[in-house]
Amino acid sequence: MKLYRIQNNKLVLTEEGIPTIKNDEILVQIKALSLNYRDLLVTEGIAHWKPSEGRIPFSDAAGEIVEIGKHTSRFKVGDRVTSLIVPNWEQGKLSPEKINVAIGGPSKDGVLAEYVAFPENYFCKIPDYLSYKEAATLPVAALTAWNAVIEQSNLKLGDTILIIGTGGVSLFALQFSKLAGYNIIITSSSDDKLKKAKALGAHHTINYKTHKDWIQEVMNITSGQGVDQVVDVVGGSHISESLKCIKSEGIISMVGVIDGKTVGSINTGTIMYKAAKIQGVETGSTIMYQRMLAAMELHTVKPVINKVFPFLEVPKALSYLKNGSHFGKVCIEL
Amino acid sequence: MKLYRIQNNKLVLTEEGIPTIKNDEILVQIKALSLNYRDLLVTEGIAHWKPSEGRIPFSDAAGEIVEIGKHTSRFKVGDRVTSLIVPNWEQGKLSPEKINVAIGGPSKDGVLAEYVAFPENYFCKIPDYLSYKEAATLPVAALTAWNAVIEQSNLKLGDTILIIGTGGVSLFALQFSKLAGYNIIITSSSDDKLKKAKALGAHHTINYKTHKDWIQEVMNITSGQGVDQVVDVVGGSHISESLKCIKSEGIISMVGVIDGKTVGSINTGTIMYKAAKIQGVETGSTIMYQRMLAAMELHTVKPVINKVFPFLEVPKALSYLKNGSHFGKVCIEL
Amino acid sequence: MKLYRIQNNKLVLTEEGIPTIKNDEILVQIKALSLNYRDLLVTEGIAHWKPSEGRIPFSDAAGEIVEIGKHTSRFKVGDRVTSLIVPNWEQGKLSPEKINVAIGGPSKDGVLAEYVAFPENYFCKIPDYLSYKEAATLPVAALTAWNAVIEQSNLKLGDTILIIGTGGVSLFALQFSKLAGYNIIITSSSDDKLKKAKALGAHHTINYKTHKDWIQEVMNITSGQGVDQVVDVVGGSHISESLKCIKSEGIISMVGVIDGKTVGSINTGTIMYKAAKIQGVETGSTIMYQRMLAAMELHTVKPVINKVFPFLEVPKALSYLKNGSHFGKVCIEL
Amino acid sequence: MKLYRIQNNKLVLTEEGIPTIKNDEILVQIKALSLNYRDLLVTEGIAHWKPSEGRIPFSDAAGEIVEIGKHTSRFKVGDRVTSLIVPNWEQGKLSPEKINVAIGGPSKDGVLAEYVAFPENYFCKIPDYLSYKEAATLPVAALTAWNAVIEQSNLKLGDTILIIGTGGVSLFALQFSKLAGYNIIITSSSDDKLKKAKALGAHHTINYKTHKDWIQEVMNITSGQGVDQVVDVVGGSHISESLKCIKSEGIISMVGVIDGKTVGSINTGTIMYKAAKIQGVETGSTIMYQRMLAAMELHTVKPVINKVFPFLEVPKALSYLKNGSHFGKVCIEL
Repeated sequence: MKLYRIQNNKLVLTEEGIPTIKNDEILVQIKALSLNYRDLLVTEGIAHWKPSEGRIPFSDAAGEIVEIGKHTSRFKVGDRVTSLIVPNWEQGKLSPEKINVAIGGPSKDGVLAEYVAFPENYFCKIPDYLSYKEAATLPVAALTAWNAVIEQSNLKLGDTILIIGTGGVSLFALQFSKLAGYNIIITSSSDDKLKKAKALGAHHTINYKTHKDWIQEVMNITSGQGVDQVVDVVGGSHISESLKCIKSEGIISMVGVIDGKTVGSINTGTIMYKAAKIQGVETGSTIMYQRMLAAMELHTVKPVINKVFPFLEVPKALSYLKNGSHFGKVCIEL
Repeated sequence: MKLYRIQNNKLVLTEEGIPTIKNDEILVQIKALSLNYRDLLVTEGIAHWKPSEGRIPFSDAAGEIVEIGKHTSRFKVGDRVTSLIVPNWEQGKLSPEKINVAIGGPSKDGVLAEYVAFPENYFCKIPDYLSYKEAATLPVAALTAWNAVIEQSNLKLGDTILIIGTGGVSLFALQFSKLAGYNIIITSSSDDKLKKAKALGAHHTINYKTHKDWIQEVMNITSGQGVDQVVDVVGGSHISESLKCIKSEGIISMVGVIDGKTVGSINTGTIMYKAAKIQGVETGSTIMYQRMLAAMELHTVKPVINKVFPFLEVPKALSYLKNGSHFGKVCIEL
Repeated sequence: MKLYRIQNNKLVLTEEGIPTIKNDEILVQIKALSLNYRDLLVTEGIAHWKPSEGRIPFSDAAGEIVEIGKHTSRFKVGDRVTSLIVPNWEQGKLSPEKINVAIGGPSKDGVLAEYVAFPENYFCKIPDYLSYKEAATLPVAALTAWNAVIEQSNLKLGDTILIIGTGGVSLFALQFSKLAGYNIIITSSSDDKLKKAKALGAHHTINYKTHKDWIQEVMNITSGQGVDQVVDVVGGSHISESLKCIKSEGIISMVGVIDGKTVGSINTGTIMYKAAKIQGVETGSTIMYQRMLAAMELHTVKPVINKVFPFLEVPKALSYLKNGSHFGKVCIEL
Repeated sequence: MKLYRIQNNKLVLTEEGIPTIKNDEILVQIKALSLNYRDLLVTEGIAHWKPSEGRIPFSDAAGEIVEIGKHTSRFKVGDRVTSLIVPNWEQGKLSPEKINVAIGGPSKDGVLAEYVAFPENYFCKIPDYLSYKEAATLPVAALTAWNAVIEQSNLKLGDTILIIGTGGVSLFALQFSKLAGYNIIITSSSDDKLKKAKALGAHHTINYKTHKDWIQEVMNITSGQGVDQVVDVVGGSHISESLKCIKSEGIISMVGVIDGKTVGSINTGTIMYKAAKIQGVETGSTIMYQRMLAAMELHTVKPVINKVFPFLEVPKALSYLKNGSHFGKVCIEL
């Protein structure tokens, strides 16, 4: 089978035997993958994302089960599944033990291969209405957005949410916010993307390039009050901008660090004065993922796929992602 | 009557007539006051705390009602009361409208006088067991601590809280945490203060001067897990230290900005990875204050008073506070 | 002006002078009213709902401000408003003091008149998109439904809610649930009403008359799990049926007592075994009402009005309500 | 080894071989047991508690690990542990799948034996400061009380809790409430027991036999407001009494059904009018149990043991429990 390993901070395509499963594992034939910003950080070996030599990267895949270990019980051959990035976080609170086994990163091989073998709790069944490509977009981007705007949010019907950008996480945040009846403001540097975001249900759009004082725009839209929640995918010093956008007792959900520059400055006096709540969001548990899938199926949510590359062009797909011109998710099809 | 006004960033003692009350106001003879760090920032005119010329500063006072307006109904002459710093925040969520009328600051005169006249909702009755001096310590320090460790905390019996320092807010946080059954770690630069903190109920003490790696101490005490909540009275870049001390999904309560240097740097990637919650805390509402007083009365909580100055020595008391060697509250007696 | 007073458990139409307002009151010309089951209980003098002789009943009205007292500040002449049934519950928790001044009941006159005078906090401005008739449906039915399915609910996008019946509260519950993305099951004794409920967004409908074992239907729809929340408008022994319908840790919202027979039997062992949560819901606060209006305006929610009677036919309208064949709200137009 | 099995609704002492463990099991030598009301219902075969013939009853035991299966990892030989009544409820929400494997009941053998073999997740390590007898009191009574007054309670320091009776659950509720700083009212039919309850920290006591109108006593103590939470161990129609005792938005925690008569009548109108919250409580998860043990260790909580019987006198111990004169827990020592 074909697969990629990281060597010298580069993806190298190789050919190896299909893995043999242990009794508690299942073998999945990968049909589609999706890219996350983390895959770039891992591949390029940025900071603590740097993996050991030979790592198989990528966390998000969808495929078909082709073999099951004799001590497994959750699936049968032929089941359609996606991977889970933090499979040991089945339910309950996050802990270092749970998060440290994230696949496709510094500590563990991922799914950038034609076949993968993992314990059965590394996978979750997907609804019929989703194609493999669509399902492959979910493990990181959709779950992070779900956790931020649904599970950990205290927003109610009609409350106002500000979504930064139009990448994978942001568009899922938009779609879930729409279904939950929030009042949605979204930002982008492109009028074209904002038009598409409006078609997806955003109530208000702000081009932060043409409106240098985009925070004032947020204030105008909210009658000077600010928003109830910001979904901040940028991180670093952008947290200070987000803090300016929320109303008293508003929430900032930190869901991303777009360029790996994670350290930013913040005014702790303003945090106090606004009684602000800043909340780190880390994908989510398997239970949350299942709840998300059920909600998506009820509402037939279609992930927004921006571009699909063939398996032999994964490096090109990564460059495309780095370029940052995507609207929604970038996928690989096998 | 005697009172202080701020002129040229200094307290000036003056003599004026006792104020005449309006129909909706009450007249209170001040018996005791307490000092907060904010009083220093206001008096010295630091940043946005700078008041207009002639401002009467100070927010925390206790006294006896000597006259009531004919449209008032809550009190009678002779009632013992304290002031409230944000009187318009009677209940519910914080809002700029509610917080902007804080007394003794940039927008409104305070209580540094022998007599003050305010609408009746600017005061709250105090339990009999408290002296005027003790009651005067409550409006800012006790209520902020109460809001941080009780109202907005999700800590349960036995969970671990880290309290930074031994000033007014920190010691109230210690006392309330003790009564709520938390596991308490407290820090100070003085072994003597830590000894006193232990006598007040702290389970673990850390001298951050003699233990340069005090964060490692926190980790040792918590078996490497970190704490459930930090009460951070320092603000600015100290937020980064606090972030290192919490466990996954732990809370950082921002309750103070000790030196007015409010801007600090923070790693937003760590916020995500830890699923941290950072929470700004701003004193509290009148309803919270009443609930706090009821809890204090039930448990006969005695505020820790460090030093008492006469009314004519308020400037000296402020210098003493600035010096930072206090353990608990600094008071003025009339 | 014309108005109704209750005499000998009957509505009597009378003619009196337009009320003179006090300094803190406003005068409102009523344009529309809506009926609630409570109006029947009050008029007929059932149990503790029995008012003193001469009471003006009804709580729900919409109208135009025609005069304002000189000590008022919230409104101007010409503003369009609705009444509030529990005006002293402005925010925060419920208390007997707040709820005991409900208008149009045993303790206080209501709004069944051409003009009414009340303090300004008895009213709330309404969005432009609502007609007077539509706005008059909101004070009790919409706010109760909002409180049950939004404010006090912990349901998330995609969770399942069971709504009993198709009266005023039930249909608002349906509309808000739809906007919040819940999975909705609704029951009725009429296929025709269920068809209309489906058009309003219900995912599943059950005719409890033709399906004697309607609880089994609920179980079939939820794969044997039960629902996350039941909105129970019936009360009394229906609580036992509701208890059978919820899943573990599910919620039963008690929002009504349709026939005044409020005492029912319940299995407390099942409450334990299911870790059930039963929650009494009592309209809501002014803050909740404003939040509801904002959400309704964002989504242009149109109340379902079943039938409109002229002011001279209020007794006929009450009989129609008692008959129970309505779908949505019954209104009076002036 | 000796053990008891239920035959014809009676405990029969028998002699069998020590069980052989499977690879995923551990063998525990039982050192102590405690009795719960459920053991009576199971033994006597009341309603759905009736087990199949030959069942080994009892859920609460403490002992020493004497052998571990080769696929286990949590414990070593010599570890001191207690059983868990619902071992599959490791964390997260309750579900029928989790609760249906409760040990010592209709579906599964329990621990009334000199040795027992179970999968390792059926046990939890105990703190050193607890004797085996003390530890044996925890699995049901302490965890239920913990779940009711700590995990699922929203009470804050100083809030008022009413605890019904002085059995095992009630006294743990008293001890945890004391440590959490609640204001505690407790009831009993015996002045002697109330005196002991006061010594354990109750602030107010009510003898419901000598004060026929004990609910009025509750109102007097709470200035006519009612309490924030009731811990109701009686169930059935006692729920109506509890409903009278709470204030608006107060909680009734249903934690027991003392005589198996679980059906009671309740006024659903009062539930609404008070915006009451009725909450079923079912022991708790393993995570909760561990958190409880940590809190108990921090505060060195000593369970209240009323009487200890030898293993050969278990039937006598059950009769003693049925008699209802105990204060705290009844134990068996081996």
